Amino acid sequence: MTTFSNTRKVRIEWGDCDPAGIIFYPRYFEIFDASTAMLFERALGMTKLQMFRNFEFSGFPLVRTQARFLKPTRFGDDVTVDSTIAFGRSSFDVEHRLGLNGETCVECSEKRVWVTRDANGRLKSHPVPGTVLSKFQK
Amino acid sequence: MTTFSNTRKVRIEWGDCDPAGIIFYPRYFEIFDASTAMLFERALGMTKLQMFRNFEFSGFPLVRTQARFLKPTRFGDDVTVDSTIAFGRSSFDVEHRLGLNGETCVECSEKRVWVTRDANGRLKSHPVPGTVLSKFQK
Amino acid sequence: MTTFSNTRKVRIEWGDCDPAGIIFYPRYFEIFDASTAMLFERALGMTKLQMFRNFEFSGFPLVRTQARFLKPTRFGDDVTVDSTIAFGRSSFDVEHRLGLNGETCVECSEKRVWVTRDANGRLKSHPVPGTVLSKFQK
Amino acid sequence: MTTFSNTRKVRIEWGDCDPAGIIFYPRYFEIFDASTAMLFERALGMTKLQMFRNFEFSGFPLVRTQARFLKPTRFGDDVTVDSTIAFGRSSFDVEHRLGLNGETCVECSEKRVWVTRDANGRLKSHPVPGTVLSKFQK
Repeated sequence: MTTFSNTRKVRIEWGDCDPAGIIFYPRYFEIFDASTAMLFERALGMTKLQMFRNFEFSGFPLVRTQARFLKPTRFGDDVTVDSTIAFGRSSFDVEHRLGLNGETCVECSEKRVWVTRDANGRLKSHPVPGTVLSKFQK
Repeated sequence: MTTFSNTRKVRIEWGDCDPAGIIFYPRYFEIFDASTAMLFERALGMTKLQMFRNFEFSGFPLVRTQARFLKPTRFGDDVTVDSTIAFGRSSFDVEHRLGLNGETCVECSEKRVWVTRDANGRLKSHPVPGTVLSKFQK
Repeated sequence: MTTFSNTRKVRIEWGDCDPAGIIFYPRYFEIFDASTAMLFERALGMTKLQMFRNFEFSGFPLVRTQARFLKPTRFGDDVTVDSTIAFGRSSFDVEHRLGLNGETCVECSEKRVWVTRDANGRLKSHPVPGTVLSKFQK
Repeated sequence: MTTFSNTRKVRIEWGDCDPAGIIFYPRYFEIFDASTAMLFERALGMTKLQMFRNFEFSGFPLVRTQARFLKPTRFGDDVTVDSTIAFGRSSFDVEHRLGLNGETCVECSEKRVWVTRDANGRLKSHPVPGTVLSKFQK
């Protein structure tokens, strides 16, 4: 099975936080969605916009996700997101670990499907192209 | 000049508010964007998705906006948004007044353009269709 | 075990949707967070802001959540969110079902803890007050 | 008059964009709010959280803002935000210019007030502390 990892830094902003002074948890899912996109950008050397132009590709919508929130984060925190992807045939799994100062704050797993559009414009699952997979194996 | 108004209620949510306990102001612009869309829905009797299917229409992006913030709002507040639209040829102006308990909290004005896509898929301004304008005159 | 349910309608807005034309999934978690708050508002007859003033209460942060995304929703969709809460001692579970035209689009479960602040201002778990629980039993 | 500038890079994400494929404009205001906070972080050498602990300070809410949207941006764009602050007595003005590849996409101006909390916890304007101003003059 093909796996690939990436690590990035994210600043938690004032506007990400709620009246309790800690991050409003839906913001974590925004961070994780961008972290998954960044895995592809790092492996393929192109942005998601370029992926639309270069591959049979109309997105990788989420099928399911689960997350555990272990420690809160606050505005001004520079967190680290470690993301690892593992491919199936037309789907893939991503594990994200968001940490601060070496401690894990959030663990999240995602299952997503590679989709294209059929003749009617509807999204349908499609095998991940081999040219994509090969870039993750380097 | 054609003008048309609409009023709607919006609940300010916990997740709309920041660590100061008041609304994070970009949320107001989300509210105003939806309020402008609702003006069209009320006048035309169709959602924005249906507008894409029924008219030469690819959106009404914002050209400029300005807002004054007079009083803060908080989670749990049920605010009222009064919106009034006035049409030019291929643009329109919207004035929003967001109030709570009869007091004005925010005043916002927008200028937007009606756009379609050219042969290359680029957005370009286009006169507001007469069939749209006529619905606002009733 | 005490359980309590609520149903509410939510409009999916243009700004909730992504370039694929469907909802950007972190928006679902914003909807679910507000749906959980609404369960308390319906049972207690007060907003979350009033809860801070009336109870030993500093929020109910999420410990874990999981969600399955079965069908996408689009801007202009008026979805229904059915939420059911079941209490433990200092935690509670919420099940959300988000549907459109009778079909389930998203299923989500949450575990949250009732928290207060200790002398140093840090959030710590605290038994759900009996006066709160009693309101959910009516 | 004291002025001070900062430049930062921001990635426009998939989730910042709407079904037209371009950024949903309220996201610009999130970017500008963080850009204003970063001006203070650069000048003072501390985060906004540390400002709460070190100064008579409860935030700098927006009084008014205006923005012009000249060219759209898209997911994957790495934009540049140039921000310049000029102080009054208890208020300050910030000008933001967001650009891509040397072209200006958005111009925004903000007026904000420095606030503290009175004995009842209400936000009220307060002169910007001299120790803060002096850091912007270096």
